[in-house]
Amino acid sequence: VLFTESRLSLAVRPNDFDSLGHVNNAVAAEYLEAGRWDWLARQGLAGGRQVIAVVSRCEIDYLSEISSPSVEVHTVLDSPTESEFDEDALTYRARFRQRIHVPDRPSPAVDALITVGFLNAEQRSLVSLQDYLAAAVPR
Amino acid sequence: VLFTESRLSLAVRPNDFDSLGHVNNAVAAEYLEAGRWDWLARQGLAGGRQVIAVVSRCEIDYLSEISSPSVEVHTVLDSPTESEFDEDALTYRARFRQRIHVPDRPSPAVDALITVGFLNAEQRSLVSLQDYLAAAVPR
Amino acid sequence: VLFTESRLSLAVRPNDFDSLGHVNNAVAAEYLEAGRWDWLARQGLAGGRQVIAVVSRCEIDYLSEISSPSVEVHTVLDSPTESEFDEDALTYRARFRQRIHVPDRPSPAVDALITVGFLNAEQRSLVSLQDYLAAAVPR
Amino acid sequence: VLFTESRLSLAVRPNDFDSLGHVNNAVAAEYLEAGRWDWLARQGLAGGRQVIAVVSRCEIDYLSEISSPSVEVHTVLDSPTESEFDEDALTYRARFRQRIHVPDRPSPAVDALITVGFLNAEQRSLVSLQDYLAAAVPR
Repeated sequence: VLFTESRLSLAVRPNDFDSLGHVNNAVAAEYLEAGRWDWLARQGLAGGRQVIAVVSRCEIDYLSEISSPSVEVHTVLDSPTESEFDEDALTYRARFRQRIHVPDRPSPAVDALITVGFLNAEQRSLVSLQDYLAAAVPR
Repeated sequence: VLFTESRLSLAVRPNDFDSLGHVNNAVAAEYLEAGRWDWLARQGLAGGRQVIAVVSRCEIDYLSEISSPSVEVHTVLDSPTESEFDEDALTYRARFRQRIHVPDRPSPAVDALITVGFLNAEQRSLVSLQDYLAAAVPR
Repeated sequence: VLFTESRLSLAVRPNDFDSLGHVNNAVAAEYLEAGRWDWLARQGLAGGRQVIAVVSRCEIDYLSEISSPSVEVHTVLDSPTESEFDEDALTYRARFRQRIHVPDRPSPAVDALITVGFLNAEQRSLVSLQDYLAAAVPR
Repeated sequence: VLFTESRLSLAVRPNDFDSLGHVNNAVAAEYLEAGRWDWLARQGLAGGRQVIAVVSRCEIDYLSEISSPSVEVHTVLDSPTESEFDEDALTYRARFRQRIHVPDRPSPAVDALITVGFLNAEQRSLVSLQDYLAAAVPR
């Protein structure tokens, strides 16, 4: 199956912390991107160079501070769903649901919805998720 | 008046670019934070150490790629409005409307709504915008 | 014993790459800092808040490009040596030898000598390594 | 003349600060890279895509903390000197002397020597400074 959840453990680096002593909100967006790359890798794919995925929208809720030495990023494809994806219609957007967890806490510290679009890298024109997957290289 | 728009010009640094050759989406969140600090400075204030502002939610639309050598970050306070702020009721959230512009383009490359809350730094408890402004130090 | 080598495995994040498609030289300095924190943790210590370690000099040789999904940072205390440290004389500098390795390559990609000094955080005055260790908190 | 000093003013961004409340040592390396790009621009050039400059060694002395809202990066070509460069012999290394200044202080906060080499981007083989300049595109 294509749509397996990814759970990526990441070390928090000293300069992820800002002057308030917690992980900066912009750094959380870096963790989320690492999670999406890991999700792709778990589907057996790596991003190609001809067709690229770019973030078109993010909605991120910061629910609690992160000051732990590591985090775990959970990533699932939220849309299209597996049934939607089976249809013939091309899909021009994919949306990921991502959560950042810290050790020993059941509820996530960050809850995010990240929408990506797909571009032909040379022509800078929009293409479909199907084009993206076709151009992705097996790992 | 408290609520003046800030327009901050920022140099784009070489390592703001990612392997796709444009400014990474997480870096745009850094630009937005610089814009909010500048907004505060333009109100004649700097963040204090007792009461701190933390991002509780961001919604960011990435409308076009950024590959220019500089950007301009526009920041206004979206909520509370000036009339809302005059009321006696305490305000526990502030929301900023921020746009990132690149040179010679009328429409923004990034359009964002950033909600911040306020914390007593020692007690880690929620306080109001009014508490935050009272604790902020004049620049 | 105080002076154990640390070997820290770190995930390379997507935005560690710059527009040339390899890990940016400034990001390697972040990896090194993560390595030094891990070294400290392996000695059973965490940095305190009263006495802090600050980098006073770095010499970094970039021997080969990093484009792997992970790296391993090796950190040893180069100076003072264990015998020097046993003496009564206070030590005002510590120097770490650090190497960044990529998977499946015997020789390091980065070879670095990092010198740190110690500061009393409040007074901003130089103190000794002995003061630093005394103020460090057990993990 | 080719070898003009660059003086680049850069805004310090909120997340340049680390948990100690000063600009992190790795971030100073980002400032230096921005300075070298500006130096190149002042010579009327921009980096090309066929021949790229990569940092092979850095020596950075951190002389005082940076906590100002802006810095100025001074960059000169230290080697080859102008007379050396006139010779017929090809040059495989260029070394920059760079200093980071903070407002209202005569002495620099950071003093650095950065050595760069030149690579043919496709073949990943060493080429000369002369090759690099020939491949650089006029701005």
